Order: sequence, then C-alpha cells, then structure tokens
Amino acid sequence: MAQNKEMTVAELQAVKQKSGKSYNQLAEETGLTNVYLAQLLRRQAQLKPHTAPLLLAALPDLTDPLLHDMMTPPLRSYDPNLIQDPTVYRLNEAVMHFGESIKEIINEEFGDGIMSAIDFYCSVDKIKGVDGKDRVVVTFDGKYLPHSEQVKIY
Amino acid sequence: MAQNKEMTVAELQAVKQKSGKSYNQLAEETGLTNVYLAQLLRRQAQLKPHTAPLLLAALPDLTDPLLHDMMTPPLRSYDPNLIQDPTVYRLNEAVMHFGESIKEIINEEFGDGIMSAIDFYCSVDKIKGVDGKDRVVVTFDGKYLPHSEQVKIY
Amino acid sequence: MAQNKEMTVAELQAVKQKSGKSYNQLAEETGLTNVYLAQLLRRQAQLKPHTAPLLLAALPDLTDPLLHDMMTPPLRSYDPNLIQDPTVYRLNEAVMHFGESIKEIINEEFGDGIMSAIDFYCSVDKIKGVDGKDRVVVTFDGKYLPHSEQVKIY
Amino acid sequence: MAQNKEMTVAELQAVKQKSGKSYNQLAEETGLTNVYLAQLLRRQAQLKPHTAPLLLAALPDLTDPLLHDMMTPPLRSYDPNLIQDPTVYRLNEAVMHFGESIKEIINEEFGDGIMSAIDFYCSVDKIKGVDGKDRVVVTFDGKYLPHSEQVKIY
Amino acid sequence: MAQNKEMTVAELQAVKQKSGKSYNQLAEETGLTNVYLAQLLRRQAQLKPHTAPLLLAALPDLTDPLLHDMMTPPLRSYDPNLIQDPTVYRLNEAVMHFGESIKEIINEEFGDGIMSAIDFYCSVDKIKGVDGKDRVVVTFDGKYLPHSEQVKIY
Amino acid sequence: MAQNKEMTVAELQAVKQKSGKSYNQLAEETGLTNVYLAQLLRRQAQLKPHTAPLLLAALPDLTDPLLHDMMTPPLRSYDPNLIQDPTVYRLNEAVMHFGESIKEIINEEFGDGIMSAIDFYCSVDKIKGVDGKDRVVVTFDGKYLPHSEQVKIY
Amino acid sequence: MAQNKEMTVAELQAVKQKSGKSYNQLAEETGLTNVYLAQLLRRQAQLKPHTAPLLLAALPDLTDPLLHDMMTPPLRSYDPNLIQDPTVYRLNEAVMHFGESIKEIINEEFGDGIMSAIDFYCSVDKIKGVDGKDRVVVTFDGKYLPHSEQVKIY
Amino acid sequence: MAQNKEMTVAELQAVKQKSGKSYNQLAEETGLTNVYLAQLLRRQAQLKPHTAPLLLAALPDLTDPLLHDMMTPPLRSYDPNLIQDPTVYRLNEAVMHFGESIKEIINEEFGDGIMSAIDFYCSVDKIKGVDGKDRVVVTFDGKYLPHSEQVKIY
Amino acid sequence: MAQNKEMTVAELQAVKQKSGKSYNQLAEETGLTNVYLAQLLRRQAQLKPHTAPLLLAALPDLTDPLLHDMMTPPLRSYDPNLIQDPTVYRLNEAVMHFGESIKEIINEEFGDGIMSAIDFYCSVDKIKGVDGKDRVVVTFDGKYLPHSEQVKIY
Amino acid sequence: MAQNKEMTVAELQAVKQKSGKSYNQLAEETGLTNVYLAQLLRRQAQLKPHTAPLLLAALPDLTDPLLHDMMTPPLRSYDPNLIQDPTVYRLNEAVMHFGESIKEIINEEFGDGIMSAIDFYCSVDKIKGVDGKDRVVVTFDGKYLPHSEQVKIY
Repeated sequence: MAQNKEMTVAELQAVKQKSGKSYNQLAEETGLTNVYLAQLLRRQAQLKPHTAPLLLAALPDLTDPLLHDMMTPPLRSYDPNLIQDPTVYRLNEAVMHFGESIKEIINEEFGDGIMSAIDFYCSVDKIKGVDGKDRVVVTFDGKYLPHSEQVKIY
Repeated sequence: MAQNKEMTVAELQAVKQKSGKSYNQLAEETGLTNVYLAQLLRRQAQLKPHTAPLLLAALPDLTDPLLHDMMTPPLRSYDPNLIQDPTVYRLNEAVMHFGESIKEIINEEFGDGIMSAIDFYCSVDKIKGVDGKDRVVVTFDGKYLPHSEQVKIY
Repeated sequence: MAQNKEMTVAELQAVKQKSGKSYNQLAEETGLTNVYLAQLLRRQAQLKPHTAPLLLAALPDLTDPLLHDMMTPPLRSYDPNLIQDPTVYRLNEAVMHFGESIKEIINEEFGDGIMSAIDFYCSVDKIKGVDGKDRVVVTFDGKYLPHSEQVKIY
Repeated sequence: MAQNKEMTVAELQAVKQKSGKSYNQLAEETGLTNVYLAQLLRRQAQLKPHTAPLLLAALPDLTDPLLHDMMTPPLRSYDPNLIQDPTVYRLNEAVMHFGESIKEIINEEFGDGIMSAIDFYCSVDKIKGVDGKDRVVVTFDGKYLPHSEQVKIY
Repeated sequence: MAQNKEMTVAELQAVKQKSGKSYNQLAEETGLTNVYLAQLLRRQAQLKPHTAPLLLAALPDLTDPLLHDMMTPPLRSYDPNLIQDPTVYRLNEAVMHFGESIKEIINEEFGDGIMSAIDFYCSVDKIKGVDGKDRVVVTFDGKYLPHSEQVKIY
Repeated sequence: MAQNKEMTVAELQAVKQKSGKSYNQLAEETGLTNVYLAQLLRRQAQLKPHTAPLLLAALPDLTDPLLHDMMTPPLRSYDPNLIQDPTVYRLNEAVMHFGESIKEIINEEFGDGIMSAIDFYCSVDKIKGVDGKDRVVVTFDGKYLPHSEQVKIY
Repeated sequence: MAQNKEMTVAELQAVKQKSGKSYNQLAEETGLTNVYLAQLLRRQAQLKPHTAPLLLAALPDLTDPLLHDMMTPPLRSYDPNLIQDPTVYRLNEAVMHFGESIKEIINEEFGDGIMSAIDFYCSVDKIKGVDGKDRVVVTFDGKYLPHSEQVKIY
Repeated sequence: MAQNKEMTVAELQAVKQKSGKSYNQLAEETGLTNVYLAQLLRRQAQLKPHTAPLLLAALPDLTDPLLHDMMTPPLRSYDPNLIQDPTVYRLNEAVMHFGESIKEIINEEFGDGIMSAIDFYCSVDKIKGVDGKDRVVVTFDGKYLPHSEQVKIY
Repeated sequence: MAQNKEMTVAELQAVKQKSGKSYNQLAEETGLTNVYLAQLLRRQAQLKPHTAPLLLAALPDLTDPLLHDMMTPPLRSYDPNLIQDPTVYRLNEAVMHFGESIKEIINEEFGDGIMSAIDFYCSVDKIKGVDGKDRVVVTFDGKYLPHSEQVKIY
Repeated sequence: MAQNKEMTVAELQAVKQKSGKSYNQLAEETGLTNVYLAQLLRRQAQLKPHTAPLLLAALPDLTDPLLHDMMTPPLRSYDPNLIQDPTVYRLNEAVMHFGESIKEIINEEFGDGIMSAIDFYCSVDKIKGVDGKDRVVVTFDGKYLPHSEQVKIY
C-alpha cells in the first residue's frame, strides 16, 4: 500500500514537471492554496470531485487512474528523516520553542481549546521586509475548537 | 542553571498574573508581537534595553534582578513532553505533514534556501471564518536565507 | 508549573478520598461522564463556571483556590511510563492494532475526515456478557471533522 | 513471512475493492462487527471455519489459498509510523490522556483488573449529535479480567 | 502519586528486613507464590482482604495504614533502567529471542490466542541439574485466552 | 547474511509445513524441548551433529545444504516489532513487572548471581486449571551462575 | 525520490572516480571550498549556473541530465547511522561537549544570536603541529544572525 | 532504593579519597583486580565475607553499616548518559564495531557459545608500546559458555 | 557525583560573573583558547597545575577547594536537551550534513584515519565578511590519527 | 554505497569459506591479530599495500577488484540490531557496567586522557581457567591519549 502511494506520487510529480508549472501557478488556476495543491500532488490530501476538472485543465496529462486514486482518502504520513532538512527543522524548531506561548495566547483569547489541523488552511507567501529583503510567510489558519464539556446527554 | 530559568519563569508568570493583563494587552503596550511577549516572560527571548522601560511600565512589579536576568541571552529549550499537549501536537502535525510541500514552494518561489527561525516573527490572531466561527491564525514570518555557495574567498 | 499541577492533583485526590465517593457517584451528581469527572480531578480538563457549583455541592471540601485553579485551561499531559500499566497498555494495543481498520471505516462511512478528540465524550460502562460475566465498555464519541479543502478565500 | 502477510493483504484488499462492498456491508452479510471484518481483510484476525462460508458468499472472489491463509493465526503487528495518521493519532491521544482515569474507574467499579483486549469487541458507529452533525462512536467492549491472586495451588 | 508508591515500598521493605524473613518464608506462611509475595511488598499487586491477616501474622510490624494502602489497586510500573540488571536482561533476552517460537507453539497446541498475564502465576524454584549444580526455574503459568470472534450480538 | 537467514528460515518452515507435523510432534521424535525445536527451524539455535539424523528422520525433506547451514552457529536476533504481538508482549510485560522480584528471590535463595540464558531450557506446556480451563505454562530453566569475585590469579 | 538521489550520487561518484581527481583538486579548479565541492557530488548542495561550466571543465564526463539534476535544490539529509563512523562521531562529540561554551562565547562577543548554517562556509585543511605531525583543521564560518526582536510592524 | 545506592557510593568514595590510596593500591592490598575493586566501591559488585577483613585493613574508615551494605547483592546499573564520556564511548565503539568479528572467532575457536560476563574478570594495565609511549590494556576474561542443546530430560 | 559537578559549575560561573570578565579576556590572560577556558569553568576540562596560578591571577576569587576540584579529571558530559538550543543545533546540523564529505576529504588528503577530539583545539573567532557583516568562525583543530594496522607484535 | 559494502563483504566471506581457513589461521599467515583479520574481511579496516600480498597468498581467490576495494578507507558501521546477539550484548554489558571504573583507573594511573580506539589492537584468545575449563580473553590495547591543554599557539 505504502509503495503504491510512493509510486503514485512519483507519477504525479512527473506530470507536474512535464507541465513546467509551479505549485503557485497550479494553485492560481484551481483556486486552492499553494500548500494544499502541493499536498494533492503527493497524496497527502483528497482531491474533491468538483476540483478534479479544474486540476485536469491545469494538468492535462493526469490520467483517469491517477485522478481516481487522488479522490480516495489517503493515509497521511511522512518520512521521519524529513526533520533533517533545514527548512523543515526550522519550522519544527519554531513550533516547539514557541508552542507553549501559542497555547497560552489561544487560551487567553479564545478559551480552553485548540487550533484545528483538520479544518485548516496553510499557505506560503513572499513579502518584502522593511529592509527590502525577501521574507517567507507561512500562515496556519485553523478553526478554533473548544474542548467540549462531557455532559451525559445520551 | 536550568533550575534558575524555571524559577525566574515562575516569578515572571506571577508578576503577569498579578497584573491581570493578557499577553495581547502587554504586547499592545510594548509594541511587540503577542508570541514574542510571551516568550520574554518565559525566558525564551532576550529583553532588549530599549524595550525594558516599556515592559516595566506595563508590569511595574518587575524587579531589577528580574529585568537584569531578562536582558541576558537565554538558553532556548523546551520540555520534550510538551508535544503531548493537543495544541502543540496539532502545530507539529501540520509542520511535519506539510513540511515537504512548504519546502518545495520556497524553492520554487525563492530559490535554494530556507525561512530563518532567527530573523523571525510569530503572532497569533483571531479572525472570523466564512461560517462566522472563530479561527486561530498563526503566522510564521522569517527572512529568506539562500544557501551560500561556498566559494574560496579567504 | 508541572510541579504545581502535580500538587493540585494530589490535593484534589485527597478531597475526593475524604468524600468517600466514587467517580461514578460524582459523575451522577454533576451530570458529567465518569471519565470527564476523573479528568477534572487530575487537572486534565477545565472546570466550566456553571459546573463549579455542582461539583462543590458534591465535594464540599473543595477550596476556593482549588476551584479557581480548576477553572483555568490545563496543560494536558501524561507520564510516558503510564503505558507500562496493563490497563492502559491494552487500550493502546487495541488502538494501534485496530487503528487502520477504524480509519478506513470512517473513510467509507463519513468521508475523508477524522473523529475529533476535542469535541469528544468518553465513558466507562459495566455490562454483562452473554456468559453473565462482567464486561468493560469504553466509549469514544467524537464529532466527525472532514479535512477541509483549502480553497483560497481570503 | 512479513512480506507474505503484506502480499496477502494486498490481494484481500483487491478482492474487496472488486466487490464494491464496504466493510459495513460485509459485516452485515457475515454478522461480524465492522472493525473485526476489516481486521480479517488485513490478516489481523483469524477467520473461523464456520464464518468462512459466509465470507465467501459475500466475497466470491476469495480463492481457496486466501481462505486457507486467513484461517491460520496471524502475527499481529502494525507499522509504527501509523501513529502519524491524524485519525490514529487522536485515538492514541485519547487513550494516553484519559488512560489513568479509565483505569481508576475500572478499579472502582470492577476491582483490581483490566479490560481484556483479547476477549474483545470493537465497532465504529455513525450517530447524530444534538446539533444534528455526524459523530463517530468507537466502542471498545472487553471482558473484565481480575488480576489473580497467585496462591500456591499446585 | 509515584513518590507515594516509592515511599510505601521503602517502608514495606524495611518491615520485611526487620522480620529477617525471606520471600520464600513469607510465601510459605501465607500460601502465596514467592514472586507474588515479593510483588505485594513492592506494591505491584493488590493485597486481598482474606490474605491480609495471614500477611500480618507473618509480618506483625505492618501498620494499618500500610495494610490499607496494600489493599488498593496499584498502578503497575517499573523503572525502564531495570533492563540493565543482568538478571532481568537475561529474562528479557529469552523472551525476545524465543518469543515467536513460543507464540507458534501456543497457536498449534491451543489455537489463536495468548497466555494471559492477568490470570497468571509466577514462581521461582531451585532445582539440581544433572551435573548436580543449582538451576533456577522460573515458571510462567497463565490462562489460555482465545481471541474472540467479534460477532455482532448486541 | 541477514537475508540468507531469512531465506533459510522460509525454506525450513516450508519443509515443516509440508510434513504436516507440529513442533510438539517434532520435539517428541527428536527428544528436544518444543521451544528449542522451533528455534532450530528459524535458525536461532545450532543443530548438533548427533541430532541431525533424528531431525532428518522426522523431516525427510531437509536437504543437505539446509542441514549444513543449520549446523553453523547462527547470529541470534529478532525483529524489534515482534513486541507488538499480544503473546510476546504479555511475556515481556511479565518479565519487566516481575523482574525485580525474581532477581531478589534468586539473590535470597542462591546468592549474588543470575539465571543463565545460555545453559538454558525453555518449554511450553498445556495444563488444566482448577476451573478445568486450559492454561499455558512457559518454563525457563537456566543454570545458576554466581558473579565471580575477580581475584588476581594470573 | 530518495532513491533517485541515491542513484544520482552513485553516478556522480563514478564520474569523479573515473577522473582520478581528489576533492581538493576539483575545489582548486572550480574555486570552491573542498567540503562544498564534496557536497555537490552527493547532492547536498545546489550547483549554481555560473559554476556549472567550471565543474564540467573539471569533470567532462558529467552528462547534461546530471548537471540539470545538480542545479535543482536538493532535499538535504543523511543516514542516521553515519554517527557510527569514528570521524563523524568525534566531530559530533566535540560539538555536543563544547556546544554550551561556544554558545556563551558567541553571546559575549556578538550578542544574542547564532552562527548561521546556511550562509556558511566549511573547509578541511592540513597543517603541521608544533611536533611536526599532521593536523586536521575543520573550519566552520557562518554569518552571525541576531535573534530579531519581534516588533509589530505590519 | 536507587538513592540509597547513590548515597552509599558517595560515602564509599569519600572513604577512599580520605585514604589517599588509588584503586591499584587497594587492589594490590586485597588481591583483587583493579576494576573489580573499583566496582566494589560503587556498589556494582558484592563484597565477599572473606574479603571484607582485607578491605577493612586497606580502608579502616569503612563503617560496619557500609561493610554490611557492600555484602548484599547490588542492583547492577549505570547512567545511560555515561556513554557521552570519551573513554566509555571508545570502549563501546570498539565493542560495537568489532563485535561481529569477535563473535565469529569465538564460534570458530570454541563453538556455538559466548564469553560469560558473570564468571568474568576485567583489569586495566599500563604497558609501553614499541614507540615507548604508554598504552592502556583492558582485558576481558570470561568463561566460555556453550549454548546448551535443550534436550527433554525432565 | 553529577550533582557535585553541577554545584561546582554554579560556583565557578558565579566567580566569573563577579569578575566581570568575558571568556575572551580570561583566555587572553591565561594563554588558552576561549573555548577551552569556558570548558574549564564548567568542569569539562582538567586545569593543569602550571595554569592554575594564571587562572587564579585572572580570577582571584577562586577558592582552594575549587582549584583543587578543577585539577581532577572530570566526567565529560552534556545535557541531551542541549541540542534544542538553536546555536548548538546548527553546529550539529553542519556536522551531520557535511560529515561524510569531511571524512572523505580526510581520507584523500591524510589516509585512513580521523581527526582526534582529544589532542584537539577549538576556538571561536569574530571576523568581518565581504559584506562587512560579522561572521562567527569556529575552528576545530585535531591531530590526525591513522587507524593502526593491528600487527601481532606482542 | 552501503549496498556495495554489503556485497563486497558477501564476496569476501565466500572467498574465506572456500579456503576452509579460520580467522586464526589467516591471522597466523599474515601476522595480524585475529580480530583485525576478520575486520578486513568485512570491510571494517583498510588493507595496507604491504599486507595485500600476504593476504593474497593466504586467500588466492581474492580478485584484483576485491583487493583494490579493500585498500580504500571504509565507512565503518554496524547493524544496530547486532546488540541483540548474546555475545555482543555481554561485551556491551561489561563495557557499560564497568565503564566508569575503567575510566577512573585510567585517570589514576595515566592522567586525564583516554584509551585510543584508533591506535588500537584487539585480539581474542583461548586459555584454560583454574578449573581446566575454556575461557575467552578479549584484549583491548590502545594508545593512551592525554586530553591536550588548548594553549593558544597559532
């Protein structure tokens, strides 16, 4: 099963490479966030039926079996060694070092709850800093979910 | 050493609690991001001299030894068990599951480099979703750093 | 901080022990699930303001500082060695061995989403098996959360 | 050996996929819980002789060698990376965070013992919450096993 | 909580040491296996009410609070570093190296099930080998538990 | 090398399966313990020259190369994931939870030494409990080895 | 994807081996540090367009597809077992044992910041010690990056 | 319990320090290997009754409670961080890198068995190399233990 | 023992802090590298007798017991969580990512050997980059040690 | 690369097996220690040019490519699961349990330094114990390396 995922991802990446389009271009053409588009092409998200024609228009080399596969719910996963990559490590470093502060601010501003990672948007943007240099902005935007009080209702 | 950090943080949290102010209020009064303000109060960031008076104005119970301590560079750290907390876990989950996609988009849009976690801003915002429900927005904003080509120049 | 939690939990357990009431009795008197009640008494859940009087009625020895502490959002955590306990291990064993099957049935019956662990109820019940012997029923009841399609809407 | 299991599971999944039936439908036709049915099709449970004809009726493409293999006791196992999947993680999170409470309630209501994971039933159900939204209910139902007092009887 | 257990165990060991009796003697006087007796004195098993008077007769220095504590269900646990001890390591080595063989023999002789570690007896005996040298015999004797077929019966 | 071991084991298991004999039957015919016999057929023990003819008589399909391979000292090993299997886990659980007690009883009854895992016998037996139900008895029988006092004698 | 990297590296190493040139010679011919040159040939760094002709001149057997591949940003990674190699271990040992001292000297001499590992040069040199024996000098030369104060500027 | 061991070791080290004698001197006076003597003074070995007077003669400040404690079988253990120390690491490195070779030579010269770590001597010696420089010689001398063939003899 | 080290280090750091001198100043006054000086003040290196007077001159508050302690060989160690600190992590990242390249260049330029971490110098320097910005230079300078051919000479 | 090493080792072992010679015989014929000879045949040491003819004389089936490969510096490594083998484990156990004692004796007898694992000899010998039984003697003989005082000399 895992091997199938790996093989499908290799095929999807080949289709993208042949198209010569970037994730940003594909995101533009389909109306999705750039990170989500990239997740679709590595089978970390499910392609919704109404989005399939848009993606096919952007990537006409997508075959029917590939599209069919992309529409089934994937087993979300990652290679644990991924954390070695400097870009991924620094994101992880920020999350772990700032995590308790982020949690407490959520508690103060929202209450006893979390930011959902399921009803969730993520995007990468390019902006200019005050020194005119490029900056990367990664936005995590998730629904606030309050911890439910477990009242006996049934 | 670690114990001292723990004790200092306990004192800083007590000062904040007594003030009755939230991180957002303190951030507002000092002109810092809310996450950075929270990091200061758990000794995960260095208090800059020009900011010390602003913080003292916001938290008049800060003693001189506390302020002095806050102005030395801290040993940044976290409790590894922190990842058990649902809020921190979901941030970590997002980073690990979306990490490779974020990396590739940075590569496509900026080149072979990373988002710095040092020249870096982080904030937590509260917005309304299209369904009128609260959403948490965590923004990571770091300088783009290209991997340098290591030319012999010396 | 962790020490404080540990100390608070010790005090809460002493209050319960002195009351001579079981978690089930306390749950009955407060209208909560038995597991949630137990979570409250080890600071793994936040006591809601409207429930505080009910709990105080059930446990009159709860002091104001304890009640106040119980009403702040806790840092959820557990001792990693807890998995050594046979009861906890078997629950973990079931989750890990049945996990992929549970996931696929959720996918088939609900779609590409998860069972929330935040909008979530948990209870422990005692029933009789067909052989007349006691059986433990642990119920996990969580809201279905579909993975959102990350459409650019902002 | 492990490879054989992996290959058998791939074949079993293909048979199911070709049948177009869901785990729930197959469970209905065979009188088993849906989770157990799914476990059978990934060789995490042994097919009992009296159930084989029922399963064959539901999945006529099951070959004799597959049925024969399904009737031998499997080596139960899982991929440790499975915990990365959000659905599995949240189940694990619930078990670890609520584990000590569940244990204590079992102790109070049953005595010094555990919920068996061997004489055990598991099912996934779909219900409506009070807000009319779908909820996932995972039920763990295991025989209560008291820790035996180890009296010298032999 | 853990600290309490550690303190109770220290007190129990002191009572035993003062009595000058070995685990075997105490087991003899109470009719329990020697391992179970030792487990009682480190709070890894629950003292049953009908056994308490026997134990008190054997160890008259046991105080009421100690006896009361011993009669509550303990949180079973161990120090992970325990595996460094050569005696414990060799037991672990045997279990891990012979484990798959033991499992398959159980499958062949009993069916698809396990040896319970709950309805379970353990003892250590001293015998003479054919060369007249001492041998240690550790016996694990657990009820056979067949994996239940999860038929929908409710 | 490891791969060869895996391939040899697969061949040995095929020979056994074709014979239709259980480990117990093979043990009976060769005069070995059932666990040791199983260890031989997965290359976890060395086949002794005087036992080779007995084994060949019991399993006539054993080829010369297989017998030759079985007579070389193996690299003893196991798959770390084996601990996931419920049967193996419960044995491990017993060893870790009872380990310190077993050690202390050995110390009291034998002195400062261990149970050897090299001069060692292991067998699995089926007995009836007082309730008439089947019980699994796993016996570990190892030579007592006293820690030598390291006197300078050379 | 990982496999592709491994295969590309094998081809690059074969090209180097055929050339008979050392990393130092290749570094000399291209004007790069020796470590960076080595990183290029195992796809741990991106080949810059203006350096490609220099490298091709030094290694004429580099094919177009190889050069093209070398010009895409790599996923930086390493085999975790690499730390077993004595040369790598001793570097790691030095970093971990001297790490806190290095950090504090950076704090004293530069301020609250780090040595970048991205705007970074590394080289290996051979010198003679005062005893006339060869010494290895590994130089890490990175830009100083001050932790930014996260002022709200947006 | 662990704390007691730590405290006893601290007292034993203080006695040694006050005596001004090295492990070698103490070993000489008691007729033990230097490593074993050192193990005695950190409670990693049991002091034998006939050696106690010799040790007391060499270290007259040993009190009766200390001697009594040293004569009980210790729980052998070590701090896992010990491997960070360069001396310990290099011993570990040698064992892990040369381990398979050592095993195969034992197999060729002795048969299918091991070097006992229980009937075992260890010493550290100082010799001159051919270049006149000091060399450390660590000798491990253990009884050869053949893996027993597990014949059914009982 | 570890605690004593921790306490000694705390005292040494207090002496340094009171002196108001930086590691660089102290290194200058004693003729040592700055990193080595810092290692002395956290008991990661042994103070040599001929250097003691120089250090005492630079830090007159060093007491005799402290100096005496500093002259005994320390147990070298570090807190494993230290790798969380961004400065230490980036050094570790460089070593792990560049490790295999460094090893191969040492092999090409010196032969089959390593850079010693024992006959070893480490220093931190501040230089200006071509852009006029500060750069940190960490130099590792160790004796080349060839792997000896193990000829039987004794 | 790693795969090549594995393949080379398989070929080298086949050459040895065909020769029918033991490591001891080969060591005798080449004048090397038996462990070093074994290391050569699994590519854990570099074959020196002057030793190549001696090895070729002892193993005439060694091909030129194999000899050439053996003369390049290897990446030293081991399978982490190797520690499961009883022979390797007991060596590791001895090193970890006796490590601190060995370190302190080196400190007392040599000074603040280590036993090199690079300028290092290892051999396995067979001797008779006082009881006439075989004993395994593993000798580790490494150059003493004093930790250098890091004086600024450059």
